Parts: sequence; C-alpha cells; structure tokens
Amino acid sequence: MAVKLSSASPAFERDFRSLLDSKREASVDVDEIVRSILEDVRARGDAALLDYTVRFDRVTAGSVEELRITKAEIDAAMESVDPETLKALELARDRIASHHARQIPKDDRYTDSIGVELGSRWTAIGAVGLYVPGGTANYPSSVLMNAVPAKVAGVERIAMVVPSPDGILNPLVLVAARLAGVEEIYRVGGAQAIGALAFGTETIAPVFKIVGPGNAYVAAAKRRVFGTVGIDMIAGPSEILVVADGRNDPDWIAADLLSQAEHDESAQSILITDDADFAERVDRAVATQLRTLPRSDVASASWRDFGAIIVTESLEEAPALVDRIAPEHLELAVDDPEDMLSRIANAGAVFLGRYTPEAIGDYVGGSNHVLPTARSARFSSGLSVLDFVKRTSILKCNADNLRQLGPSAIALAKAEGLDAHGRSVAIRLNL
Amino acid sequence: MAVKLSSASPAFERDFRSLLDSKREASVDVDEIVRSILEDVRARGDAALLDYTVRFDRVTAGSVEELRITKAEIDAAMESVDPETLKALELARDRIASHHARQIPKDDRYTDSIGVELGSRWTAIGAVGLYVPGGTANYPSSVLMNAVPAKVAGVERIAMVVPSPDGILNPLVLVAARLAGVEEIYRVGGAQAIGALAFGTETIAPVFKIVGPGNAYVAAAKRRVFGTVGIDMIAGPSEILVVADGRNDPDWIAADLLSQAEHDESAQSILITDDADFAERVDRAVATQLRTLPRSDVASASWRDFGAIIVTESLEEAPALVDRIAPEHLELAVDDPEDMLSRIANAGAVFLGRYTPEAIGDYVGGSNHVLPTARSARFSSGLSVLDFVKRTSILKCNADNLRQLGPSAIALAKAEGLDAHGRSVAIRLNL
Repeated sequence: MAVKLSSASPAFERDFRSLLDSKREASVDVDEIVRSILEDVRARGDAALLDYTVRFDRVTAGSVEELRITKAEIDAAMESVDPETLKALELARDRIASHHARQIPKDDRYTDSIGVELGSRWTAIGAVGLYVPGGTANYPSSVLMNAVPAKVAGVERIAMVVPSPDGILNPLVLVAARLAGVEEIYRVGGAQAIGALAFGTETIAPVFKIVGPGNAYVAAAKRRVFGTVGIDMIAGPSEILVVADGRNDPDWIAADLLSQAEHDESAQSILITDDADFAERVDRAVATQLRTLPRSDVASASWRDFGAIIVTESLEEAPALVDRIAPEHLELAVDDPEDMLSRIANAGAVFLGRYTPEAIGDYVGGSNHVLPTARSARFSSGLSVLDFVKRTSILKCNADNLRQLGPSAIALAKAEGLDAHGRSVAIRLNL
Repeated sequence: MAVKLSSASPAFERDFRSLLDSKREASVDVDEIVRSILEDVRARGDAALLDYTVRFDRVTAGSVEELRITKAEIDAAMESVDPETLKALELARDRIASHHARQIPKDDRYTDSIGVELGSRWTAIGAVGLYVPGGTANYPSSVLMNAVPAKVAGVERIAMVVPSPDGILNPLVLVAARLAGVEEIYRVGGAQAIGALAFGTETIAPVFKIVGPGNAYVAAAKRRVFGTVGIDMIAGPSEILVVADGRNDPDWIAADLLSQAEHDESAQSILITDDADFAERVDRAVATQLRTLPRSDVASASWRDFGAIIVTESLEEAPALVDRIAPEHLELAVDDPEDMLSRIANAGAVFLGRYTPEAIGDYVGGSNHVLPTARSARFSSGLSVLDFVKRTSILKCNADNLRQLGPSAIALAKAEGLDAHGRSVAIRLNL
C-alpha cells in the first residue's frame, strides 16, 4: 500500500524528491476568523472569552472564574485514576525531570585578556501558558512533556488552558497537571484561549510565552500573537523513519511504523532498508497488524497515502537520505547504530538499536516527545529547558578597557555614520 | 521634550502603562504584495528574482549569476577600505569570535540509574542565509554579528544577500563579509531575496535558516517562509534604558540616550534616576548635544515621541520597572551594578558601570548586538551560537531496560488509546 522506492532505479531521485515535497497538511484557511476572535478577546477580555467558550464548547458558565478548574476537581481526578496509570505517569514525570535537569544552561562570567568582563546569564521566563487540546488529541503525556521542562527551568507561573467540549474533560490531563505542579487551569480553548493568554483578561493575567499543540485555529492564533508573546514550534503531523537491516524481526519494525501511522491520517512512516525481501515482509506484517488495530482506519489511511518503503543497495546510502528527510523520529535498527548516527546531522530524536521502539520516547524514556516535524529538524530542535529560559549578555568595562577598545568603536561608528554612538565613547575618554 | 514620569505621582501607574503600550512601529501592510512575490519566486525561480531585482533596484543584469558578487569585487573593497576601519573591523571580528566560542553547547551522553543511555547531540545547521539591508541601515558591524556566530557554530554554507539600489553597495559590507569568511554573496534584496533563499532558484541553492534585519517587506517575507526555513527574531526599533544615580556626568548619560535615538525615529531611549535635579541636567544635555548631532532630525524625533525620563523616589524601585520594560539594552550606571543586576530578570544585554557605554557592545565588546526588542526580552534572547545549531535527543535501551520501562509505556499508550504504540513495546517483550 505504501509507495515503494528503490535507490537503484533511474527514477529514484525524482521519486524521492516527490516524497520529500509531498504536502501532508490540509491548509485550512482560518486566519480571518482567528484574527477577529483575537481582536475581540483583546478588546472585551473576559466577556469575549466567556462568549466564545459558551458558544463553541457548549458549556454553561456565568464568568471566567467559573471556568477555572478547582482544586477539588483535580483532587477528584486524582482519586479516579487507576493505580497502574498513576504509577506510569509518575515514572514518566520523574524521568522527564531528571533528563531535563541536565539541560539547564550554566551562567558564564569571565574576564578576557585585556581585562574586560563579559558574561551570559540565564533566567527563567516569568510566566508561561500551556495549551492542551480537547477531544481526541488530549494526551496526559503531552502535559508532562510541556510542563515538566518549564518547572525544571524555574518558570514561576504556568497557566494551562484546556477546552471541555460539551463539558467533557479527560481527568488524566488534570492528573498530569497535578503531577507536574500546574495549579492554574482554565477550561477554555481555541483561538480565544490563546488570545486570553497573550493579552490577558480581567481574570487571566497575560503570559510571556505560549507552548503546546493545537488544531488549525490554535496554530493560526499562535502565529498571530507571536511577537506579543513567544511561541514554541507549530507542530505538524507526526513522522517516523526507521533504518533497518534484514536481521530485524519484520513484525517489530511493522509495529514501529504503525505506532506513528495511528496518530493521524497525515502522519508519515518510512522504512529504509538494504534488504528487498525484508522490505516485503515488513509490508506484509503492516497489512496483518492493521487488521487488528483499533485505530486501523487512521493508520491505514496514513500508510496508504504517506507511507514509504525505500530499498537501497547498501545502508551506506542511508545517512544522506536521512539528512534530506530530516525526520522527527529516527530509529536505527542496525548492528552499529552509533556509527550510523555519527554520519547523520538532521533528526529530532534518535532511537538506537533493536530494543528502543520510538514509543518508549513518547512516554517514559525521559527525553522530550515534542519534536520538529515537516523537515524542520534541519534547523530546529525538540522542546527543552532552553525553551523556558532566556539569556542576558553582560559587558563591563573599566576606564582602562574603554581607552583600549574605544578608538575602534569610534572608528566603526564613524564608518557607519552613527556619530552619537561614537560620542558616547569619546566623551568618556575626553576625545 | 521627552515625557517625564514621577513614581511618586498618583498617575504613575497609568502613565507607565501607557509608556509600555506605546506603539512605535508603523505597521505597513505589505503582506499581500509579499505573498505574490514569494509565490512568483517559488514558481519561476531565477527569472522572477531577476525581474524584481531589475525593477526594484534599478540594476542591469542578464542573469542571477551576474548578480553574484565576484571575488575581484571583494578584493577591490578590501583595497578601498582605510586601514583604521579595517583594523577596527578585525578587532570586532576577533572579539565576537572569542566570546561566541564560549557559547558552543556541549554534547551530553550518559547512562541513567537503570542503565538506559540518553543524550543530547548538537550539530550545526547545514546552510544559512544572511540578509543584509541596502541603503541607510547597511552596517558592516551587523554582517559580523550575524556571520561570525554562524561560522563559530560550524555552519558550512552561508549565503548572503544584499540589495544594491541603483547599483550602489557599501564596500564595507563586503569587507565585513570577507573578514567573517562569507564568500557566496548575491546583490539581491527584498521579499524576492528571502524567497530565493527559502525555496532556492536554479542559481541559488535553498538554505535551512534565514537571519538578519530588513525592512517591512523583508520582515513580512520572513514570517511567511517561517516553517519552510527557520528564521531569527523579527527585530523592531532599537531601545536603551539607562538606570543612573545622580553621581553620573549628565553629558555622558545624554550621549548614551542619543546613541539609540539616532538609529531610527521609532527608537526609544529611557532614563530612570532617583535624582530629579540630575534628570533635569540630562534633559538639558540631550537638548544641547542634539544641536550638533549630524543625525539630529532622527534623534530629535525619537526623543520627542518616545523618549522618557522616570524619576523614582529610590533606585530600589528600578529593578521592577526594568523587568516590566524588558529593554533591549540596559545600562546600570550606579555604584553597585552587580547587585542591581541580580534583582533584574528581563533585559537583552546589560552594560555595567559608568565606563560601559552601550556603543561598545554594538561594535567591539564581543557580545552580540542582535538583541530582543519590543519587550521580547521577557521571553527571548539575543543572537548566539545556539541560533545556528540544533539538538538531536538520543535514547538507547537494551532488552533489560525495555523490560523495566516497557510496562509503564504500555499502560500510558493504553490510557491514551494508542494501541499501536503499546504494541511496538509489547511485541519486543512477548507480552
């Protein structure tokens, strides 16, 4: 069902390019409605947020304060969760926290060879908004993956928003919030929630940055408020690229390909192998497993429309193809994955060896599952503590330093026609 | 001329908010024309790029290849530059390189307490586009500030674009490019240059990220291609905030305020002091210095429309005000600037003490002068080596690790209704 490419074919370059260029996202144009919702929330605050929430989510509430999730609601969610799931969420929380703690950047202060003091100082962003989707993509693991790194970074205030269409809210999302230490939660969503976080309302204080996934309205709203606040990446449909030699169990690799295909009809799963026979066996295993998969409709559509099997003459060809695909998730199911990794530059997250299915990274590996999609691993990284801090650069000269550096600064200011720049130096040196 | 605020006044909070909310940028709506230029460059490549360049920049050329700056042109620029300016640019280049080398992030590989291998690996972005404006904002120092960190990060290919309206090109920009090691330079600009870098043309290979300042067309084009490529921040007009006690020379502080005011009529210079008499003397010194400043028209307009002097009862009030302003540039001209810095969170770059005029940081301090404007220091940082690298997260389990972590991953996959995720783990454990 998936498209099959062979690197030995004369048409390979053309076919591979067409795979790279395939447009997977339906670009719904919601920009105009999003613009008007944002303007309305900016102008009318709480009243607008409440109006849209009542209308779009069909909930009843007399004020935004009523839309705030109470401590009692979170307590109730904690009591409703089964012990196994709670234990798994706690393990995930702890492993995410440990891994991300290593990402906290270190301040740097030093004196250079001529005595000038320089430095970089990192501080946490003061207030962050976390968007959590309602409906089918409402994942407690995503709450942990976004909130835990923010907490580790030292963010003081995290305001979470999550819509409850028809009043329905997944209690596991509240459990994950509690485990991550998030206490300020509002039952709102869509562009109106993004507007409330960015501009603030009477009830919700504005934040400085908004993270978290969302639908087309949320994505468009985040793009529009970018500048007023910071935003994380705009995530596209999930992807996996598996590089596998013929010594893998085809059932294992098929399961890995389907683990992304089941996310979304626009998800993409690709296999690169040097063994044409193995490729056939994986393809058949995918077909077999699809028959018993609960989300078979979604996974079948993804595999049919965007799945691909690329057979190469040698796995030596793989690194260059990987770099062009720049996958969100990359599995290297080969004998020496470290060697292959050393020849690859572009991938959001890499899963090494035959015993690291990507799903481990989605939940309990400890690394983040918010990763660059749509080939953006060529220029961007997964979510990390760095997304919740900012750097201030520090410069300190004494009179002697200024005497040494000043004349060059004055010369460059003159060359650029910026006399006041030069003056601010010259005046201190009596020049 | 600048607005004057006193923190003792009952109207202070209202006035301060109004200062924070003042809209400094004329929002020219160029989005529609930019959209059509980008589409045309994407569709017609070189032909479109050439058409727009000939039309908008009034240059004659028969091909995009002819728009590439030759080695001979750069050689000629190198010979035309006066020795003092060349020496100053070399000093700036060397100091920027030394400082930014300290920002190269370290890879991290480790084995956790249960034996799982994790890590973060950093690699340079493969190809970066550098936009350099033509006309009045055509600064060789900006070329260094953007290109040197990219080189330090290990970026293999830097493609620079700079328009030459009526064929005029500042030779110092070519000198700075040569000093930074940039060799691929095209005489093109505007949205068409951004399109060429993002999508590629027959002559110009596409890049993965575009950095550098530009006018409204360039900014709109960068916003539009964001996603296809990475972009740096969208820079707004420059700003300086000086916190000064009464023991400063008012002429020095006035010079510092004017060094940003001369950039742009929309630039903003703010003084916070606890000494009302000193505030008056600075105000008079600004007026005096404006009379002899070559860019007096620009600086006067900026100081009149956006300048502010805030008199507080005590400098203890300063840190909280600074954090709300979140300035691009912050000078702390006080006795104990380190102590004050420790109580401030939001600033792009800080200049400590009485002998560190901001202009030193613009040229030869070593830190970067590309900094967050428009209060975005609340959530973002100045340009650094981190803008030219990306991180791949690494996870490696063996069979034993998978046995330990697997059941929790399966439990969470089940809780999220993602059975194929669970299967990819269970199948390896014969569960």
